[in-house]
This record gives sequence, C-alpha cells and structure tokens, in this order.
Amino acid sequence: MVSIYRRFPRQMYFCDQMKFTLQHKDPQSKARAGLIETDHGPIETPIFMPVGTVGTVKAIHQHELEKSIKAQIILGNTYHLYLRPGMEVLEGAGGLHAFTGWKGPILTDSGGYQVYSLSHRRKITEEGVTFASHIDGSKHFLTPERAIDIQRSIGGDIIMAFDECPPYPCDYAYAKNSMELTHRWLKRCCEHFDQTSGKYGYSQTFFPIVQGSTYDDLRRASAETIASFDRQGNAIGGLSVGEPEEEMYRVADMVCDILPKDKPRYLMGVGTPVNILECIAVGVDMFDCVLPTRNARHGLLYTAKGIINIKNQKWKNDHSPIDADGPCLTSQTHSKAYLRHLIHTKEYLGAQLASLHNLSFFLWLVGEARQHIQAGDFVSWKQQMVKELPRRL
Amino acid sequence: MVSIYRRFPRQMYFCDQMKFTLQHKDPQSKARAGLIETDHGPIETPIFMPVGTVGTVKAIHQHELEKSIKAQIILGNTYHLYLRPGMEVLEGAGGLHAFTGWKGPILTDSGGYQVYSLSHRRKITEEGVTFASHIDGSKHFLTPERAIDIQRSIGGDIIMAFDECPPYPCDYAYAKNSMELTHRWLKRCCEHFDQTSGKYGYSQTFFPIVQGSTYDDLRRASAETIASFDRQGNAIGGLSVGEPEEEMYRVADMVCDILPKDKPRYLMGVGTPVNILECIAVGVDMFDCVLPTRNARHGLLYTAKGIINIKNQKWKNDHSPIDADGPCLTSQTHSKAYLRHLIHTKEYLGAQLASLHNLSFFLWLVGEARQHIQAGDFVSWKQQMVKELPRRL
Repeated sequence: MVSIYRRFPRQMYFCDQMKFTLQHKDPQSKARAGLIETDHGPIETPIFMPVGTVGTVKAIHQHELEKSIKAQIILGNTYHLYLRPGMEVLEGAGGLHAFTGWKGPILTDSGGYQVYSLSHRRKITEEGVTFASHIDGSKHFLTPERAIDIQRSIGGDIIMAFDECPPYPCDYAYAKNSMELTHRWLKRCCEHFDQTSGKYGYSQTFFPIVQGSTYDDLRRASAETIASFDRQGNAIGGLSVGEPEEEMYRVADMVCDILPKDKPRYLMGVGTPVNILECIAVGVDMFDCVLPTRNARHGLLYTAKGIINIKNQKWKNDHSPIDADGPCLTSQTHSKAYLRHLIHTKEYLGAQLASLHNLSFFLWLVGEARQHIQAGDFVSWKQQMVKELPRRL
Repeated sequence: MVSIYRRFPRQMYFCDQMKFTLQHKDPQSKARAGLIETDHGPIETPIFMPVGTVGTVKAIHQHELEKSIKAQIILGNTYHLYLRPGMEVLEGAGGLHAFTGWKGPILTDSGGYQVYSLSHRRKITEEGVTFASHIDGSKHFLTPERAIDIQRSIGGDIIMAFDECPPYPCDYAYAKNSMELTHRWLKRCCEHFDQTSGKYGYSQTFFPIVQGSTYDDLRRASAETIASFDRQGNAIGGLSVGEPEEEMYRVADMVCDILPKDKPRYLMGVGTPVNILECIAVGVDMFDCVLPTRNARHGLLYTAKGIINIKNQKWKNDHSPIDADGPCLTSQTHSKAYLRHLIHTKEYLGAQLASLHNLSFFLWLVGEARQHIQAGDFVSWKQQMVKELPRRL
C-alpha cells in the first residue's frame, strides 16, 4: 500500500511561526489590508474563507478552489471532522491537507459552536462538554485540552480556542458566566497548546475568541482579556447568531478597537456580502460563512448588481451568461437558462456551478475591498456596493 | 440580453454528412477500429458514450468530460430533454450543444425506451404513443415524426429512430408485432428526416434500430430490413433488458454479421465492461450506459483489476490512491480513505470524484481495445481483461 503523502507540490514556506504584516490602512475608515504568512502559503487580507465542513467545500473540487475561485485559505469544522472520518483516519492520512489534497492554508474552528448548534443532550461543566452526536447519538466528551489535541491531529494552520457560544438573545447573567467560562477554558487551551506541537512538520497558530453577547461591558472585558493573552491573532465569536445587523457592526467595531492592531482579526461565521464590507470597515481581516455555498444549492446567486433567484420562471429562456461581468469564467460561459434547468432538475452540476459562482463572487468581493483599501477609495466604493447588494442574504 | 451563441471554440468540421472510415479489422475476431467524422469533431471507435440524461452527465463538468475523461461523444435523452427544459428553451439556446456548452458530438436517443420504462398510462397505436410524464403526470403524444422534430430541435449529431423496445422475456407474437410496428415507424421517421433539415447549421445523421427480442428469425429479418434502409449508421436496440449475457452476445453477433461493414454499429444501453469487450469482439463500434455514473454514486469503482466497493470498512484507513495505475489523474492523487469518507458522508464531491473515475475507466477501456485491435492482439488482451473484470457489474 503506497500512501499519498507526496501531496505538497506547493512549496512549503516554513515561516516557523505565522506572520502578519499590516500593509495599508484606509484613511477614511478602520479598514486594513495585510498579509498573513503560513507554512502553506500566504493569505492577503481582508479574506473570505470557504467552509469545508466535512473535508470538502460542498460540491467544489480542490483544483477549482485553487484555480477558479482563488481561495487562499479554507475552513474545516472540528466537530464534523472529529465525528467523520474521525481522528484515526485523519492522523493516518497525515492531517487534513494530505487527506483532502488541498495544498493551501486551513483554519479549523474548535467544535464549540457545532456542539451547541448541532449536538444533542449536551451538558456543560467546568471540565468540558458532554454531548451526543447528531449523526448516531454516540456520546462524546470535549474539553479545552481535547479540542486542542483534535486540532493538532487535523493539522490546521490556524486553530481556535474551545469556547462557549451563547445564544441570542441571552440574559446578562448567562452571558457573563459563559464569557468567564470561555476565559478559563482559554487559559487551559493556551497552556495545552504551548505544551504540544504540530504533528506534521509545519507550524500551527492558536487564536483565542472574544465572547460577551451584545453587552458592551462584557465585550470590552472579553476583548481586553483576549488581547492580554498576546497570541498571534484574535477572533470574535458569538455574532451573526440572530442579533440585528447594527448590533453586529457596533460590537465588532468596539472589539476591533481593543484588539491589537498588529494582529489579524477574524470575525467567525460572518456573513452576507454587506456584513463583510461593513465589518471590513471597522477593522476585521478574516471571515467565513456557509452562505455562498448553501444559497448556491438553493439557486440564489450573488452578483455585483444584486442577488438572482435562478429558479424564477423569468430566467427559463434567458440565454445570457449567468454573470457576464463576474469573476467566474463558468458564469461567463454558462447561461442563466442552463443553470436554472440544472437547479430545477436537482442535478449535481447545478450545485457545482452555482457554488463555484458564489464562492468566486465572495473571493472577488474581498479582493476588490483590498484593492480599494490600497487605492484609498474603500469607503466610497463600499457605499456604492452596499446599495447594489441584497440586504438580508 | 447577450445570448451565448459564441460557444463553439472548437473548430467545426463541416463534413456536411457524417463519415465513417473502417481503419482496422482484428484478424482473430470481428472487432474493428474506425473513425466517425461529424461536424462537431471526430470519434475514434470502438467508443463509449457517457450518458447526459437531462443535459448534464451527472456530477461531471463539461470541461472534465473533455480534458480528464476524454469523452469523444456524449448521449442526450430525448424523453428527459423534451420534458425538461423543453423544446422552447432548447431551441432558444440554439440546441443542446449551445445550451450545455459541450462542444463535441452528441447522440440523442429517440425517447422510445424511456416512454416504455419511465412514463405512466402509455397507449401505443399505429400513429404513435400517448403517455403521462413521470414528473408531473402531464399527457404527451409522441409519433415517429414528432420524435424526429424534437431531435432536430435538440440538435444531436446522430439522432435515432423512434422504436418500440419490447420487454424481456416477451412472447414471439408480441415481439413480431412490435418489430413490424418499429419497421413501419422507421419508414415514417426516414421520410420525415429526409424532408427536414438541421436547425443550427451543422448536419445531423439518422440511425435506424434493429429490434426482434431474442428470436433469431426476427432479429435476422429486422437486421435485413434496417440494412436495406441504407442509412449512414445502424443501431441494435432491445438488448441489455434482462436477457442472459450469452443471449446478448449471440444476438449482437448475428445482427452485426448482417449489418453493412462500412457503417458504424451502435449497441444501445450496453453495458458492463465485460459486455462491451465481448460485443466489440463481434463487431460493435459504439456503446452507451448509465452504469459507470450510477455505480459511482453508490461507491462502486471500476479498475483494471476488478471492482472496488469504496464504502467497505476495509478502505477506511487506506491512504493509497484510488487507482494508482488508472487513467484518471484524480484517482491517482486522491486516496481510497478520502473517497470512502466522501461517499459515506453523502458529499457532492464523492459523486463527482467517483463518476470522474468510472467514466475515465470506461473511456480508457475502449481506447485500449482500439489500440489492441490496431496492434493485432485484441483477443488475447480481451481474454485477460475479462478474467480481471467483474462478472455482473
């Protein structure tokens, strides 16, 4: 049996530790352009990370991610990967990069969010969380230390703290206790991370997560605590969980002001194109969301001129390109009528083409944002874009 | 609205009429190697045609068909395309080539087989067939003339006669009456075909179909009748419908002996790799079947050393390539463990990679057969291959 460990044709950088260079600051907003360097290659920020839930960005080949969508980093979900294929298989493969054949950087979440949103019969104690798998009901126990161990085995370039993500709305007492538990767990995560090392010869970087629901004093306290850990990057969790958009922007703004300027800031699970632009404006550098791929499978297509519901009857005999001016070659060469037909008949290729289209759009959007930050006209460009983009999708 | 008619970058040949050149005859069997030339490009025979049921070869991009699988011609199903997206859309697009973006040759069946296998409440009269759609129960009426008109609108390079495909087993009287009806319909198809012309500027070629179930005298009479129509190619229908394999080979052999040698012979809906090799040996040039794509979606993978059920537990931690020696680059670079995981979790990418693998194998198989015919050692190669290949899949 010949193993396929020979799958790192992209030259490994071996920066040893992740580096972040702040390259440009927008004069009229808090938007930034930067460069993250990992052992699996560079990431130009602001960046959107396609979500590869269970070891694949849904309906997308790895070579399309690289060549067509021009993804620079993708996300893996620890909860899903821990359940399937499981640690034995991932370790046997030599980590998620080797297992999937994706050669660029990977960020893994800690599993905390999915434990709360997907699993059953969960019980939170100081030690950790007991939960039942949403797939087969099997019982599992996750602790901060175990979450780090699992992420060491998955082998993401950036790995996340194990946190509790409170629901929205959430009363003050719950939010405060939850945040304090997250901070205590963070200390354990850090200690365990620092006592262990990467398993596959490249370095991994650890990001803590700010919590505190939508309470300003909690968010401020959490941001200060997280900043004091002095890791190489920081994340903001617990947003895009149902709160009004204005709350999201306000909290992100306030937290970004506290988090160190010389480190990347990652807003977890956000969001719509408008959310992304507004949060770039307050200083966020990294985003991830399932919206582009999930909406694609339902026939909702993003364009710079708004959203298209390709299932609509009006596209039935429209043989113009899906998006003549868009960044995706596929969308320039396939017609609306063809994609409507494929989505309508539930053909695999419909999900494939639509996902390719939407992810290309999200990567194009953050790339444009970066260029406008560098050119100094980000704010006026953003205002124009926000007018054209859909409000709620 | 800019239409996408600009989608024929591959130079059109404009042979005006399809040409067939018989290039090699195997000295030890009846196997042949030939060249079909169509306005959408050449086809080297023997050839396998991937089935693009509803305007897409399931889970496969057109560019993969061309670049990875190296398909030379694909099949479209008239019944499915007539129901969805329908003639208005296909005509609006400028035919199936423009609609799908596939630039190579296309063969369409006549819809006859699906009317019998899929539709409801069908009623056959001399005039044609009334049936209810399997999708929405809507009522439709197909005649030989209408089947030609529809195929003119779809725009396949090779289009098929409207026939009745009897079930197996089938009593002699039914088979005889059915065959005679097919012959009378063939006369109407030919007349209508000759009175009409292609709609999109390239030529279409019409193939009649031999029927007659597994009765030797009926098959012989049908083959002689079909041959007497003197069209540019001929097809054999009504096999691979449940009869023993030996019956299939015997009937195909007998019919090929009667059909003209200077015209391509297409065995419809066949079959397994072994079926294809055995029928190449009796003189068949063209094949189509849903087996490689359907089996792929269930995790059954063809290799030169037999079939793999990738769902098996034994592949769970096997990180060797799916098929290290196979023709498919994807299968050489992705592991069995990864594909097992994707099929197991029902991820789109599982169907995509497995379909790519199986179709690459089928195209490789007929390409190898062609090379061995040209090299003069087809029979010994075939005997060796048949030993390795699965019997029933």
